[in-house]
Amino acid sequence: MNPAESTTIPRGPECKGGVVISVDAMGGDRGPAAVVAGIAESAQKNAEIRFIVHGPKAELDQLIGHRQGLAARCDVRDAAGVVTMEDKPSQVLRKGEGTSMWSTIESVRNGEATVAVSCGNTGALMALSMLRLRKLPGVNRPAIACLWPSRNPQGFNVMLDVGADIRADAQDLLTYALMGASYARNGLGLARPRVGLLNVGTEEHKGRAELKQAHELIASTADAGSFDYVGFVEGGDLPSARVDVIVTDGFTGNVALKTGEGTAKLVGDFLKDAFGNSVMSKFAALLAMTSLKRLQKRIDPRRVNGGVFLGLNGTVVKSHGGADATGISAAIKLAFQLAQSGFHERLAARVAQSLSPEIAGLAGADKKGTS
Amino acid sequence: MNPAESTTIPRGPECKGGVVISVDAMGGDRGPAAVVAGIAESAQKNAEIRFIVHGPKAELDQLIGHRQGLAARCDVRDAAGVVTMEDKPSQVLRKGEGTSMWSTIESVRNGEATVAVSCGNTGALMALSMLRLRKLPGVNRPAIACLWPSRNPQGFNVMLDVGADIRADAQDLLTYALMGASYARNGLGLARPRVGLLNVGTEEHKGRAELKQAHELIASTADAGSFDYVGFVEGGDLPSARVDVIVTDGFTGNVALKTGEGTAKLVGDFLKDAFGNSVMSKFAALLAMTSLKRLQKRIDPRRVNGGVFLGLNGTVVKSHGGADATGISAAIKLAFQLAQSGFHERLAARVAQSLSPEIAGLAGADKKGTS
Repeated sequence: MNPAESTTIPRGPECKGGVVISVDAMGGDRGPAAVVAGIAESAQKNAEIRFIVHGPKAELDQLIGHRQGLAARCDVRDAAGVVTMEDKPSQVLRKGEGTSMWSTIESVRNGEATVAVSCGNTGALMALSMLRLRKLPGVNRPAIACLWPSRNPQGFNVMLDVGADIRADAQDLLTYALMGASYARNGLGLARPRVGLLNVGTEEHKGRAELKQAHELIASTADAGSFDYVGFVEGGDLPSARVDVIVTDGFTGNVALKTGEGTAKLVGDFLKDAFGNSVMSKFAALLAMTSLKRLQKRIDPRRVNGGVFLGLNGTVVKSHGGADATGISAAIKLAFQLAQSGFHERLAARVAQSLSPEIAGLAGADKKGTS
Repeated sequence: MNPAESTTIPRGPECKGGVVISVDAMGGDRGPAAVVAGIAESAQKNAEIRFIVHGPKAELDQLIGHRQGLAARCDVRDAAGVVTMEDKPSQVLRKGEGTSMWSTIESVRNGEATVAVSCGNTGALMALSMLRLRKLPGVNRPAIACLWPSRNPQGFNVMLDVGADIRADAQDLLTYALMGASYARNGLGLARPRVGLLNVGTEEHKGRAELKQAHELIASTADAGSFDYVGFVEGGDLPSARVDVIVTDGFTGNVALKTGEGTAKLVGDFLKDAFGNSVMSKFAALLAMTSLKRLQKRIDPRRVNGGVFLGLNGTVVKSHGGADATGISAAIKLAFQLAQSGFHERLAARVAQSLSPEIAGLAGADKKGTS
């Protein structure tokens, strides 16, 4: 391989400085070629990122070698094993050492990289992340946060948990509120995010017992957590401009996320059908191309690709399993932003603060009051 | 009031035969004028429907009198009280006698009408329906079923429960499968509907304990229930062509329903923005008008307006609170179809059959096997 001078991909500042992202090249539906293509796209756009890439070295060296100048930005770590979409998390925990996913997390664990990116099996990635990075002090259940296209000026709302754990009690939901607000502050630049709790109605008497309890807990922690609490929100509020962070358990959040994606895709397909319907409408589509492209960009899930694992000693970005180069590049961009903002340290401080005697006392009092 | 001969609204067959629908004129966001407009629209399209309309008689007589020929098709029942969106179900149960909602249900209870339609407060409507109509033998938790735009030839999938009860155990989910399949057979004309159980993954090991149990129960009842069981489905499958009926608890179903509606509305608004963006794209939109109208019709929630309460001694159609004339008319059309197909008797027979010793034995064995 010849790490030749490239005209297309700028070399990092002497390949030393900048932000280091650890990338799992395996486990995605489109294989390592798509991941390397995504890395190349990111490298081209941003000279400050360097990569540690994990997978079968010979294959990766070849793929990276085909992109001029990319080899100088990448450190390839040989890992023969691959975690497949079918592997159960428990199996991966027992036998996963030697896989590219394990190796990817390890680079964050030992401090070589700031953030890890993988498009592999979500359950296995969360299980491995919990085993190797461990939970942050004060966090019982880590969460996966995603970005949701919205009517807000920032263009996106944060929703969590979208699938780390199918259960969440009132205390977990409070932790999600704190972590989600921290993510919105650092990832979306909102000084004082507005947090809502997902329910089947906005009235106080609605919903499950743990939601009523969480409602009180979150309300009483809002000031200390530097966020505004807007109360219960409904499924229709996920893209709403009246909230920035939506808190829910991982079962409900996962169903909502996939329902939203499925609906957007359905409407998109119907739109294509409608425009393919007659010569006149095909001509109209041609005229409207720029507008339609703008619309597509706004709702394209590839451009907001990347769930973030929150509540661990290290940040992990989970990319869609089916992500292509554009999707991988979006996930890497998110990882870079979080690394650069010092997000992890800020979030850890926020959770630790919420455990301070004053807030813990408040939370305890509320819990007693409603139970 | 002069029930004059009308040129626009055909009179029912001597105002005697046909199907009788009981309609609550109050409780909707747009007031009784919108409901009467919806009744008029339905009356115009379908000569076989007669109406019993519930609300303040003087006001309703006036509204109905303004529509030529409508008075001859309507029997107005005076009810001064109105259930508001803010009323708690428990209050309505205690003090609801004399409201238009109570009176509407009463017409189904005493056999004057086959199906009830209301756009009032969902919680109160379900509570009143349970109190006055009572649950079908064998049904522990009634459910609300909705239609979901889909890629299937019939254009819609059925999802239940979308909000009757925030809880559902394995046996409830089995009942939902039987009732949902019956609804798909009678409402959508599918001889052997395909039923799926909503979960956060399609693998058998995923999800909550009650879902694994329901998975076994539904699988073993499919043949006796004359449906095919496709196993676990995800949020993205709600509009899918691989399933016709999606079974879930009322909390998850309600969040999914509102998320889907919210997403479709967001994409629609983005689309409008995109087309309003330049002179060129405005012109394109003009050219594509027919196609866009067709698209709008396909995803317009007003045209699939009407959740159906299943598992009671009588059928109740819940229309959107914000429904306009088009929405009310769609809900009445659905009520008419269900009344005409003898849906209620068929569903009752199906649930009773599932309690036959053979199936009950099967279900019991499965329950034991998995617990």
